Amino acid sequence: MTASLAPKINSERLNQSIADLAEIGRLPNGGIRRISYSSEDLQARQRVRDWMVEAGMTVRSDAAGNMIGTYAGRQAGLGALATGSHIDTVAVGGRYDGVLGVLAGIEVIRVLQDHAIRLLHPIEVIVFTDEEYSMIGCKAMAGTAVNDPERYRHRDGTPIQTCLARLDGDWSKLATAQRDRSEIAAYVELHVEQGGLLDGAGKQIGVVEGIVGQYRYAVTLIGRPNHAGTTPMNLRKDALVAAAQVVLAVNALATQTVGEQVATVGALNVSPNAVNIVPGQVDLKIDIRALSQAHLDQLVDTLKQQLAEIATATGTEITITPILQAAPTLAEPKIQAAIVQACQQLGLTYAHLPSGAGHDAQEIGHFTDMGMIFVPSLAGISHAEDEYTSPEQCSQGASVLLQTLLLLDALY
Amino acid sequence: MTASLAPKINSERLNQSIADLAEIGRLPNGGIRRISYSSEDLQARQRVRDWMVEAGMTVRSDAAGNMIGTYAGRQAGLGALATGSHIDTVAVGGRYDGVLGVLAGIEVIRVLQDHAIRLLHPIEVIVFTDEEYSMIGCKAMAGTAVNDPERYRHRDGTPIQTCLARLDGDWSKLATAQRDRSEIAAYVELHVEQGGLLDGAGKQIGVVEGIVGQYRYAVTLIGRPNHAGTTPMNLRKDALVAAAQVVLAVNALATQTVGEQVATVGALNVSPNAVNIVPGQVDLKIDIRALSQAHLDQLVDTLKQQLAEIATATGTEITITPILQAAPTLAEPKIQAAIVQACQQLGLTYAHLPSGAGHDAQEIGHFTDMGMIFVPSLAGISHAEDEYTSPEQCSQGASVLLQTLLLLDALY
Repeated sequence: MTASLAPKINSERLNQSIADLAEIGRLPNGGIRRISYSSEDLQARQRVRDWMVEAGMTVRSDAAGNMIGTYAGRQAGLGALATGSHIDTVAVGGRYDGVLGVLAGIEVIRVLQDHAIRLLHPIEVIVFTDEEYSMIGCKAMAGTAVNDPERYRHRDGTPIQTCLARLDGDWSKLATAQRDRSEIAAYVELHVEQGGLLDGAGKQIGVVEGIVGQYRYAVTLIGRPNHAGTTPMNLRKDALVAAAQVVLAVNALATQTVGEQVATVGALNVSPNAVNIVPGQVDLKIDIRALSQAHLDQLVDTLKQQLAEIATATGTEITITPILQAAPTLAEPKIQAAIVQACQQLGLTYAHLPSGAGHDAQEIGHFTDMGMIFVPSLAGISHAEDEYTSPEQCSQGASVLLQTLLLLDALY
Repeated sequence: MTASLAPKINSERLNQSIADLAEIGRLPNGGIRRISYSSEDLQARQRVRDWMVEAGMTVRSDAAGNMIGTYAGRQAGLGALATGSHIDTVAVGGRYDGVLGVLAGIEVIRVLQDHAIRLLHPIEVIVFTDEEYSMIGCKAMAGTAVNDPERYRHRDGTPIQTCLARLDGDWSKLATAQRDRSEIAAYVELHVEQGGLLDGAGKQIGVVEGIVGQYRYAVTLIGRPNHAGTTPMNLRKDALVAAAQVVLAVNALATQTVGEQVATVGALNVSPNAVNIVPGQVDLKIDIRALSQAHLDQLVDTLKQQLAEIATATGTEITITPILQAAPTLAEPKIQAAIVQACQQLGLTYAHLPSGAGHDAQEIGHFTDMGMIFVPSLAGISHAEDEYTSPEQCSQGASVLLQTLLLLDALY
């Protein structure tokens, strides 16, 4: 059988690398804190660079601090088949988010090296800079970063210029990090789902249909602050009563509209926020996501109309300010088909699903064909110390990545 | 005509005193900051003490720092007819809240002194301690203070012992401040309405029916924090969606129940309060007020049932903790009738209304007959620099206070 001769992921080696990297930035509670540009981030990058070199890759960094390992191909003039993800974490993150995509990419190269296999295309494994906050790495590569350093300032206040310098990057040369389809023919990213659909459905692999578009709005409701004891109900302009109607309207928008959208009010602040004062102002933030741009636009139109009705009914003034408008990035059907074929060859169950979270692939997909492979997250938990994907599931994801790259090598 | 011989309030003198006191703690924006126990509070107390002495009163302080001026009566063995209020303010208060009651009381005494009139009863003018925060003054006098100094600690963290010592009070002897009906036969307090009912109705005097009871609850809603992009709507336990239903239920309780209750969610905090995370917890505070204890209890029963239904429907856990249960204090009908009679004698329009705000009278009413006279607050504004009651309205209130005390002198 050819299957037994085919190159195979070394599950133990892959999972050992995951465990090794988890030692860098490990917190007492088992979570990982490896914030971009921190000493832990730098230490982890050095470890990954060493692994890349050991696997026979040449490694370079670009102006955005992205670390790019290249495993040369056999045929000159072809763009790379690229994979990768990120190794930075949120303040208290888990062991798998981002890391799996990078280390599975390196494991794929190790396997090819073990078998002395060269594909037609070069393969790149990319560690993108600061996925968890500014996404400056993938945006610089896609040319979607704007020329305003304030937009990418670190959470802790450090200027982006200083941050990138720590990674041997250079803000003033950011444009040199931009790439195109001639350099990267296709990009496939393996990632943990960070949601509970695969775990709930008992499927081994997720074939990502695309990364949802995401609209965020800041909404301010102005009422009139008043004494909560002496102001009769009919004379009130209670900004929180109006805001409560907005929260329920946003929820109903997602639950009562046909489609797979989600809509959330995650942040809400009341002013003056005192038990004995009728709220005079509420500031809240709305997040709406869907895979279709037209559908997103329609949802927002509906919502704006509802907010105007709430303002009239409650005597409040409601203003809506867009703070993020990220278009959906659809996965290339050819790559989705290759992932499905890989699953079938490997005997793994799979399901098609959108990615509700943002990933580096969403920017890379703006300039070249993109696909994503998901593996289950236990109970959908992510960005937390109890994020978990089993060694076997990690290995299955890496196997699908390997098999998909082999299939794409013939397609591109 | 006897009316022309009757003693009359000197409006100019009263309003000059109000203006003089407003100089102490005056802020650049025109507001007043005279927080209890502050140097401004001490300075204002000294000014008021001087005025009391000039008006022929003897002045003493009790263990709670209450300053009590007494104008002797003609008949031995009678309890006092007491009036008064407070001269402390909120962080940015107005010129009239509290001050009017104290200075109108002194003006009443000045008028009696001018006419060499002594009533049968002694008259007391009381400056209560810290009405705006702990209400320790009126509570000590009513014996409703509890033996726990932490409950009365200053906003700024200063122990109540230190605070009272600044006023020549003594926490360890607080019980000595308690008084009874034999010492105070009746208490009448003049105050600005701090609401907009009189101003809206164009009435000159408010005859207070009582001070509403006030129930406050801290409500915690526990849901499950989740990624706002990857968590499908049907798998969410969104604490803010549940909280929004609670806010609307509280509002509906007040607007859709027969009665004059008010109900407010004034404070609400979301956790983790991030735009991309489904809220895992909300903490909010409910304030419900009504003039009838039975009605209040019924409202709370209804609300608790609704909160249980919301918890079930949203999959959240809702806990309710009482943080304040102040019973209503009804005004004595005899005193209300005397106030009405005074208005009629003076040719002033009046309306009966409850007090939605708390006042020193609410505690004094626990041990003796109590009544309150309101004058209009322009647009209902209070606890702000633009709190306003015209000189004429202040004078009308003082006239009603004088006339009422004259009537009560024959009734008690």
